[in-house]
Amino acid sequence: MDVSSFFPIWSKLTAFEQQTLKNSAFIKKIPAGTVIHDGSADCMGLLLVRAGQLRAFILSGEGKEITIYRLFERDVCLFSASCIMRSIQFDITISAEKDTEAWLIPIDVYKRLMESSAVIANYTSEVMGTRFTDVMWLMEQVMWKSFDKRLASFLLEESVIENTETLRITHEQIAAHMGTAREVVTRMLKYFQTEGMVKITRGCIEITDRNRLEALSE
Amino acid sequence: MDVSSFFPIWSKLTAFEQQTLKNSAFIKKIPAGTVIHDGSADCMGLLLVRAGQLRAFILSGEGKEITIYRLFERDVCLFSASCIMRSIQFDITISAEKDTEAWLIPIDVYKRLMESSAVIANYTSEVMGTRFTDVMWLMEQVMWKSFDKRLASFLLEESVIENTETLRITHEQIAAHMGTAREVVTRMLKYFQTEGMVKITRGCIEITDRNRLEALSE
Repeated sequence: MDVSSFFPIWSKLTAFEQQTLKNSAFIKKIPAGTVIHDGSADCMGLLLVRAGQLRAFILSGEGKEITIYRLFERDVCLFSASCIMRSIQFDITISAEKDTEAWLIPIDVYKRLMESSAVIANYTSEVMGTRFTDVMWLMEQVMWKSFDKRLASFLLEESVIENTETLRITHEQIAAHMGTAREVVTRMLKYFQTEGMVKITRGCIEITDRNRLEALSE
Repeated sequence: MDVSSFFPIWSKLTAFEQQTLKNSAFIKKIPAGTVIHDGSADCMGLLLVRAGQLRAFILSGEGKEITIYRLFERDVCLFSASCIMRSIQFDITISAEKDTEAWLIPIDVYKRLMESSAVIANYTSEVMGTRFTDVMWLMEQVMWKSFDKRLASFLLEESVIENTETLRITHEQIAAHMGTAREVVTRMLKYFQTEGMVKITRGCIEITDRNRLEALSE
């Protein structure tokens, strides 16, 4: 499948715009663990995820992390092109959580298309609105939701992403996703275990009572 | 001064677009305390603030609040037009903190201009990027900054906005700006008072050591 099936508003583009994208887009392979966008340092272009998983997060001065959103197959990574929007004045880091393949539309090509096409400019706004919505959701979680509910939601979400009841994830990694300390995660997981909702083994967390976790997360 | 001096990219618009805006924009007077946008309920259009002060905040299910950003003279209020961006799927409330006058560009007019003009569409993206930056700043504050530093910053900011060292604001109002409980604010203000940074009187907080508050906030 070529780039046309991954660019969401393809049928609304002019023949010239379609040809420009076809001529310039190429497949980029991103091995798991690669940082593809670090603060405001890089600006490779728009990425259309063909397969794999990307993670966007912010970092504190002391190196703490919190996951802002994740991108999966057919998602569009806009912040790898954030330099074309002058008003985006925050630093976000994007890394590949799994081996990822994406169509890359080079930054200068996308910039030119966006400047000349209202359709592409409005589409870009819509992508930004989607990420803005992700961040507002997270803000509400962090502000109003207690940590036990957030952790229950996180475990259920991981279970859906990985399609398993047995999550291979460390307490440290969960802490980095959730913007908290490892000790806080460990303490809450132990409480979940005494309540029979999970079983903790070395390097794994097994979901043993999905219904109760779901009830808690709501 | 007419709408041309408040619409930031006026000189980049076509004569037709300028005329459309001039014909449709009108002054809206918003008394202090008025809620102009409530969740996703209203969608009046784009507001260009001529004078006054608007406040955007989110509400928890239990009625707790946190201020997301504020808008002053010459700022553009995009979320009063959020219905034209389908991907904006969060509820924000906007109210007038002071008597406000703004140019209102009706929603159907702005929608049509945005759909046909790449310049206006990209400008809209830039405004959204600015608000996105505000929210990311707040997220970093909430995640990584201790409450004493946040409160010191808030008092200094209020002092700049109101141009006074004596703030007429209740602990309850501060709590609503900062997304916390009144008791938490009261406790920290008392600590600031014992440290000689502020003086608390009925309904007022006087800043008595600006330098130390600034040092704390950094």
